[in-house]
Amino acid sequence: MYHVLSAHQFDRNQLDQLFRMAEIMEYTAANGGSNLLNGKIMAALFFEPSTRTRFSFESAMMRLGGKVISTENASQFSSAIKGETLEDSIRVISSYADVIVLRHNEVGAATRAAKVSSIPVINAGDGAGEHPTQSLLDLFTIQKERGSIDNIRIAMVGDLTYGRTVHSLSYMLAKYKNVTIYFVSPENCPIPKKVKDYLDEQGVTYFEENDLHEVAAKVDVLYMTRIQKERFPSGEEYLNAAGRYVIDEKVLKLMDEKAIILHPLPRAGEILPEVDADPRAAYFRQAKNGVYIRMALLAYCLEGKQAGAELEALAKVMV
Amino acid sequence: MYHVLSAHQFDRNQLDQLFRMAEIMEYTAANGGSNLLNGKIMAALFFEPSTRTRFSFESAMMRLGGKVISTENASQFSSAIKGETLEDSIRVISSYADVIVLRHNEVGAATRAAKVSSIPVINAGDGAGEHPTQSLLDLFTIQKERGSIDNIRIAMVGDLTYGRTVHSLSYMLAKYKNVTIYFVSPENCPIPKKVKDYLDEQGVTYFEENDLHEVAAKVDVLYMTRIQKERFPSGEEYLNAAGRYVIDEKVLKLMDEKAIILHPLPRAGEILPEVDADPRAAYFRQAKNGVYIRMALLAYCLEGKQAGAELEALAKVMV
Amino acid sequence: MYHVLSAHQFDRNQLDQLFRMAEIMEYTAANGGSNLLNGKIMAALFFEPSTRTRFSFESAMMRLGGKVISTENASQFSSAIKGETLEDSIRVISSYADVIVLRHNEVGAATRAAKVSSIPVINAGDGAGEHPTQSLLDLFTIQKERGSIDNIRIAMVGDLTYGRTVHSLSYMLAKYKNVTIYFVSPENCPIPKKVKDYLDEQGVTYFEENDLHEVAAKVDVLYMTRIQKERFPSGEEYLNAAGRYVIDEKVLKLMDEKAIILHPLPRAGEILPEVDADPRAAYFRQAKNGVYIRMALLAYCLEGKQAGAELEALAKVMV
Repeated sequence: MYHVLSAHQFDRNQLDQLFRMAEIMEYTAANGGSNLLNGKIMAALFFEPSTRTRFSFESAMMRLGGKVISTENASQFSSAIKGETLEDSIRVISSYADVIVLRHNEVGAATRAAKVSSIPVINAGDGAGEHPTQSLLDLFTIQKERGSIDNIRIAMVGDLTYGRTVHSLSYMLAKYKNVTIYFVSPENCPIPKKVKDYLDEQGVTYFEENDLHEVAAKVDVLYMTRIQKERFPSGEEYLNAAGRYVIDEKVLKLMDEKAIILHPLPRAGEILPEVDADPRAAYFRQAKNGVYIRMALLAYCLEGKQAGAELEALAKVMV
Repeated sequence: MYHVLSAHQFDRNQLDQLFRMAEIMEYTAANGGSNLLNGKIMAALFFEPSTRTRFSFESAMMRLGGKVISTENASQFSSAIKGETLEDSIRVISSYADVIVLRHNEVGAATRAAKVSSIPVINAGDGAGEHPTQSLLDLFTIQKERGSIDNIRIAMVGDLTYGRTVHSLSYMLAKYKNVTIYFVSPENCPIPKKVKDYLDEQGVTYFEENDLHEVAAKVDVLYMTRIQKERFPSGEEYLNAAGRYVIDEKVLKLMDEKAIILHPLPRAGEILPEVDADPRAAYFRQAKNGVYIRMALLAYCLEGKQAGAELEALAKVMV
Repeated sequence: MYHVLSAHQFDRNQLDQLFRMAEIMEYTAANGGSNLLNGKIMAALFFEPSTRTRFSFESAMMRLGGKVISTENASQFSSAIKGETLEDSIRVISSYADVIVLRHNEVGAATRAAKVSSIPVINAGDGAGEHPTQSLLDLFTIQKERGSIDNIRIAMVGDLTYGRTVHSLSYMLAKYKNVTIYFVSPENCPIPKKVKDYLDEQGVTYFEENDLHEVAAKVDVLYMTRIQKERFPSGEEYLNAAGRYVIDEKVLKLMDEKAIILHPLPRAGEILPEVDADPRAAYFRQAKNGVYIRMALLAYCLEGKQAGAELEALAKVMV
């Protein structure tokens, strides 16, 4: 059985295949969708709300002809209140559906679910753990926008201590050749030592920086994240830090003409609306890519190699 | 692109076409539905709950072969909590779906959404603003039940100061010929001056009345709405007012044999259950018409002129 | 019109047919589903949350090609807040859908709904009233697992005073031949007199017991339910009682090799995880049977005799 529990489960070759499949999915979606998953049911089991991620998965399933049963807030509504374990919930729901998309607030929840599930489980975020489909769509977007992930120079900007997204992305970039990472954060929320240790081990070049304007000029990809107010001892210090990490027209002018700006969204002030119209603002295209990556992952989980064959046949039509 | 933001966007000719299409939709729904919107996804984005309106739209989409992604309470669950603007939410969701149905508590929300959306937006109510599909289904019901909207005499009854429904309906009726409106309300919640000014401008005849029994005998359409307790200084005054605006068997006897009673629903005492069995009680038929109007609007937004052509072909079969 | 309001509405012959249909449904679901209910819409109207039951019904509808409009918490979100009666809600929703699945906190709600609905209503639990699809799936599971319901010896264990499930199941078992029931409960929550009176009337043999271990050795079916803490005057007494009604490896050893363990789920400690791997642990298979029973009931409500004919044709293929 094929689960999607961690972005790390995919090696470089599988990532290449996945992104190829995601491109085919984009073509499929633009041409009226497919019946590949006709008759299949996806259970969207969200123990904490995330309308955006849920919608993206549901849309992906429907674009492939599948159907969806869905709960927005499983922790409040389900038998979890009556003391049922996650394992029992999964055992029951795996008799109702063909694939489970699980969002949970506890690290490791998706792995625990996969152990008892009789159907594939896709991790849609497990607390401070992983959110593999986000990492995969980030990588896919870089490859699509830049042509390749090898040789890129990328800045990750914002609160780098607690940002699950940037940790995962850093780990995944180690699978590519000659990547240079610039970690740009306020002094009190640097990238953690464990991430740096891993990059050292894998021989990835990285730098820790404070000045966004200096770094902006050097990179192919500017990956922005939110800076959270509650991390700072005073409002003044927060405003000072937050103000230093805002993409505006000034930053745009510093950036390379072919560089791109990414953001996992939602944003809250760290990219000004004046930036949206610039062709380098890729964050809404990035959100859209999430549907294609999830289509590819659903096909992978539910159809495995056969999906690959059908899709390759389709791909020939694309040329 | 075709958005549905305001009932006013449709001129008389377009209203005639829309109601013609809604009739075809009724025929379609009664005959197993259609595949017109097969492969299309509607996002029902409700920032405030309205199960009835949401169900009506979702049913309409499904009767046309489409699929639905849906949130019951976007303001509580979505990234709105994290400070995301409506514009950003719409930009992202328009990459997941083919049409957005938006319910929001702020006036103008649908228009703001349409400005940034890459797909059609249908206004399903924007606070004290508009609820165009309600107005359109009201008009459609009058035309269907009475044969024509021209020349009708209609009473609007209840709290006319705050009732969004009756304001919209008044404005829309000005597009028809020789309409007479009787506004029947307690003294402390009359129809606003701006509505009267508009009707004066358009040359629509109207009267302000207090006595429901007197008016009931004169009209073709009795449009009931709720009287809200909190508008009255004392419970006694409320009961007095509310008691004067109740449809019961006595009122039925006063009414013309071919007159109809409408209500946007839910009702709360202003039409007694004893009235339900009377053929003039049209309010549940009115609710049903909502599905056909919404089918027509979804077809209009997603298929435009082609929908018209396909539906006209279908219409020929109906004869 | 065919409603499903009570398990009692089915006589022995109809139960046999229904279970036959459920078996066909299992075959259908395992072979990619059916288009029997293509174009039909089920409204899942849950006035109190029950994700499990809702998912089971929605899955059943989708396996038959139907679509679903759904609300997780109708009492909080719908016009119920504005004072609308259940009857009015049902009248409106029956113009949006083809079948209503209703979960409500008030006894008799489903029967009230059926009286005003223009489409079939299925009772998915009405407070302390009935939950007929649970009773039917319980019976179906016994028949499937044991080959027959006639002649079985069954123990019902736990809080038997308030357990709606065990009351319904007891009543239903009276429709079968030579059934023996062992009621096993703490002294302060025995099976009610009205259930015993009914069984006396119908000539069903039953015993009231306290010792699970003694009974476990005698029965073909062990039907477990939760013991609720709030029923006991002190925590100590609760722990004492609860501890006596736990299925563990010791109980497994006492049980017949072909006996089965059932539980309506969710469980909360009364069956230890060590039991799950035993082939006699049938409670997750029981949950899965819920989908097949609900598929059969939806087909029965929406297609009536025609469903029977189509399914019998399908059944021939199965042989």
